Amino acid sequence: MSSAALDALQKRLGHRFARPDLLARALTHRSFGADHNERLEFLGDAVLSLAVSSLLYERYAGSDEGDLTRVRAHLVREDSLHKLALALGLPEVLKMSDGEARGGGAQRPSILADAVEAVLGAAYIDAGYEAALAVVRRLLGETIATAAGAGDFGKDAKTALQEWLQARRIAVPSYRIVAARGQAHAQTFEVECAVPALDMAELGEGRSRRTAEQEAARRLLDRLTAERGKP
Amino acid sequence: MSSAALDALQKRLGHRFARPDLLARALTHRSFGADHNERLEFLGDAVLSLAVSSLLYERYAGSDEGDLTRVRAHLVREDSLHKLALALGLPEVLKMSDGEARGGGAQRPSILADAVEAVLGAAYIDAGYEAALAVVRRLLGETIATAAGAGDFGKDAKTALQEWLQARRIAVPSYRIVAARGQAHAQTFEVECAVPALDMAELGEGRSRRTAEQEAARRLLDRLTAERGKP
Repeated sequence: MSSAALDALQKRLGHRFARPDLLARALTHRSFGADHNERLEFLGDAVLSLAVSSLLYERYAGSDEGDLTRVRAHLVREDSLHKLALALGLPEVLKMSDGEARGGGAQRPSILADAVEAVLGAAYIDAGYEAALAVVRRLLGETIATAAGAGDFGKDAKTALQEWLQARRIAVPSYRIVAARGQAHAQTFEVECAVPALDMAELGEGRSRRTAEQEAARRLLDRLTAERGKP
Repeated sequence: MSSAALDALQKRLGHRFARPDLLARALTHRSFGADHNERLEFLGDAVLSLAVSSLLYERYAGSDEGDLTRVRAHLVREDSLHKLALALGLPEVLKMSDGEARGGGAQRPSILADAVEAVLGAAYIDAGYEAALAVVRRLLGETIATAAGAGDFGKDAKTALQEWLQARRIAVPSYRIVAARGQAHAQTFEVECAVPALDMAELGEGRSRRTAEQEAARRLLDRLTAERGKP
């Protein structure tokens, strides 16, 4: 890859590598050869998790562990990292075998997400945890700062979904029970949450109608924010 | 709890808290009241994972990601943390409700494992990542340094199991195919690994007889090391 491309990437990361070989390795898929990024990915996965945990802990002093865990899971999942990889321009700088490249490897979400983690692992080895934390803060700080407003915390999913739609002047969702199974006291409800204007619907299941509605709303909200960017 | 007990704990951790309130909170189960340790546990879980990852990465430069991941999982699982909690004397210093205490809460593995994580989270907040890493190095450094000798790396599970047994003068295990399903080229084998002298057996499944044997051997070795201490 060109050194201009590597320069641009380091600017986006806000970290200039003292050891550029580490960055090069982080960008090398295992199909390319022995110096691939899997060990760095192993490390970077944990770097990302602690950095995100730490930023969430600091930012949301009033949130309980369950909320924090849910948001952390959302932020570190493949889908989120894939978007981050695209924003960083990783498809242009990844090294992989010709076969893998012809098969569309540089666009594959799992390969891109792994590369993001590997880059964070490389930053940790290059300059220590605080430096890697600074990269994560730069890349995800805003997302983390606004997570609360997105209904990921505090607010229930139905409220968050309604606010998301209202902010875009889209009619509120409708809920209907599609199935109720089992005897009283041990029933399971299946509820559909639908947004006709968007032609979208998701199902949720729960031990009460309310729980099932929340679950359906959360799924729909997750799809909306995944497909249409941040809430 | 007595300040002597807290003193002793800090000596064992190798970290003296600038903010003893953080340590006190890390040792408070949610049954005791609002200032409980669950948020610190959320953070500490990630601190532990990165610290262990980093120490493994450094110590085992030749091991691949799969081996590192397997050993990390072993080191951070509840069972391992429970042992660490006992070595640190946490049952004596944990605060919990009378009801929880009467129910044996101070001996419960999950509560103790969570408290270990919370203490690491507290060290991270108190003095930063490097300080928390130093605590993990002190507590687990030797275990990590000897993991390779234990057959957790490099060696295959069958060899590791055989060596574990030979070191204790126990007769070698026997393997037998208990089932083979599917057509040639798409077969699945189920193999039993048995150690008659210990009256123990485990099953393993795989696409080849060898893979199934390895899986069975690894399960048996995991059980042995869990039940009878470190390999």
